[in-house]
Amino acid sequence: MRIIKSINEMQRMSLKMKREGKSIGFVPTMGFLHEGHLRLVDYAKRYADVVVVSIFVNPTQFGPKEDLNRYPRDIEGDCKKLKSRGADIVFIPHTKDVYPEDFQTYVEVFELEKPLCGRFRPGHFRGVATIVAKLFNIVMPDYAIFGKKDYQQFLLIKQMVRDLNFPVKIIGVETVREEDMLAMSSRNSYLSKEEREVARHFAESLYLAQRVYNEGGFKRPVDVVRYVERYLSKFKGIKVQYVELLDALRLKEVRDFSQDMVLASAVFVGSTRLIDNRVLHKRCR
Amino acid sequence: MRIIKSINEMQRMSLKMKREGKSIGFVPTMGFLHEGHLRLVDYAKRYADVVVVSIFVNPTQFGPKEDLNRYPRDIEGDCKKLKSRGADIVFIPHTKDVYPEDFQTYVEVFELEKPLCGRFRPGHFRGVATIVAKLFNIVMPDYAIFGKKDYQQFLLIKQMVRDLNFPVKIIGVETVREEDMLAMSSRNSYLSKEEREVARHFAESLYLAQRVYNEGGFKRPVDVVRYVERYLSKFKGIKVQYVELLDALRLKEVRDFSQDMVLASAVFVGSTRLIDNRVLHKRCR
Repeated sequence: MRIIKSINEMQRMSLKMKREGKSIGFVPTMGFLHEGHLRLVDYAKRYADVVVVSIFVNPTQFGPKEDLNRYPRDIEGDCKKLKSRGADIVFIPHTKDVYPEDFQTYVEVFELEKPLCGRFRPGHFRGVATIVAKLFNIVMPDYAIFGKKDYQQFLLIKQMVRDLNFPVKIIGVETVREEDMLAMSSRNSYLSKEEREVARHFAESLYLAQRVYNEGGFKRPVDVVRYVERYLSKFKGIKVQYVELLDALRLKEVRDFSQDMVLASAVFVGSTRLIDNRVLHKRCR
Repeated sequence: MRIIKSINEMQRMSLKMKREGKSIGFVPTMGFLHEGHLRLVDYAKRYADVVVVSIFVNPTQFGPKEDLNRYPRDIEGDCKKLKSRGADIVFIPHTKDVYPEDFQTYVEVFELEKPLCGRFRPGHFRGVATIVAKLFNIVMPDYAIFGKKDYQQFLLIKQMVRDLNFPVKIIGVETVREEDMLAMSSRNSYLSKEEREVARHFAESLYLAQRVYNEGGFKRPVDVVRYVERYLSKFKGIKVQYVELLDALRLKEVRDFSQDMVLASAVFVGSTRLIDNRVLHKRCR
């Protein structure tokens, strides 16, 4: 497994591989890797000849009051995991090379960035779209693999690729969960033992709402949202930021269950912000 | 010479050429080609194995009150000229394919878009950056050739390429002028005979200012601007939109002549908007 830190070297390497007719699978990450990330590597290997994983904690997707500085890092541990999982190249660029002093160009996906996390994290998705566009131009992947835990990000990147004609196929992979169902996240490492215990009820709330939905227990979209809100209100350690049921493709409000939907939520457990979602399939009559 | 109208076909074609190790030179245009465009084709041929010219009147770079609908078009004439000049592929995409109904992703270069034309054409450079990013992803050029008549556009595209890491080298080509020095432009076709006659004084004003500058005739930057304004004020048929002297790299205001500068101006001759510029080299002491 090769570790590359220079942007130019990575770009030259990718051009060389393309000229040799090798397909490139790409997994962009912010490091502190868990099984969810490694599952993305497995998928990349399935699709492509060469697997490139990037590790870069992207400052432009953090708000001024967010956790950029305390975001967990473990490059050495990450590289070990990636090697044992069969990644071919780890790309770890320096922040000052990614964003030189006179940097001033941003990519923005104006509709899909608005709802859900976009309401509470202004600038976040502009930062995500911009860094992914940059990484696509550097790594030049044929396939890029994203987890569906970040559902809005997954849709937004697909839209960006379509709108800007990137020659990349986006693959979405199901959320990987701990044994008690909590969605894996690098941010789970922030949780104290007590917080970790209560956090499972967050995942539970969405899972149960999905089950009730599948059994026909809800009449209207608002009932689903209220069910989750009521369920979470029982736990003092959980503070809801949003619970929303939106259509699964455009993230627009829904009036009924006649389209696929995403039930998405963000909560705080202590000072740690967690997100999760479940897809509800349209009801056929 | 091959004419391609499908985005997918163009992209597949470019991937194929890249795999064959051929370098691609690209000239993006809005059609109604003149010698200025054809000179860009000459440059592309000099740099690359295959020359792709796109013809697309890009709606997102026109303001609501601008000349999108009356912009001159002559696809047949354009193709004849390109063939005789040795272009290999002409890419003429359909507007509805370039901007499908749910299109919502834009690229923006936030500093370089502000001065000069950016002050008077809000959204223009966002449209330019977005279409060029799209065309780069479709055509995948190794070299892209731009005229320096659109000096701000040339700088802005170079910045976008650097910031978003496009694997493209940007080549700038000197402005091509008519015999009386008027910069070639598709929009010159709007001019009546009388307007065309007076328009030459626009080019003249910048040329003379440059000459006076080179002879040491100006003390301060503002003197250069006033010289051009005073010169143009003599001609009733010319209405100045702006005359500015900015540093030639960042387009920031200058306090003296210690850096390379661009003397740039936009005027109206009748209802036709014309732009032109001259580069003034720094004064060595």
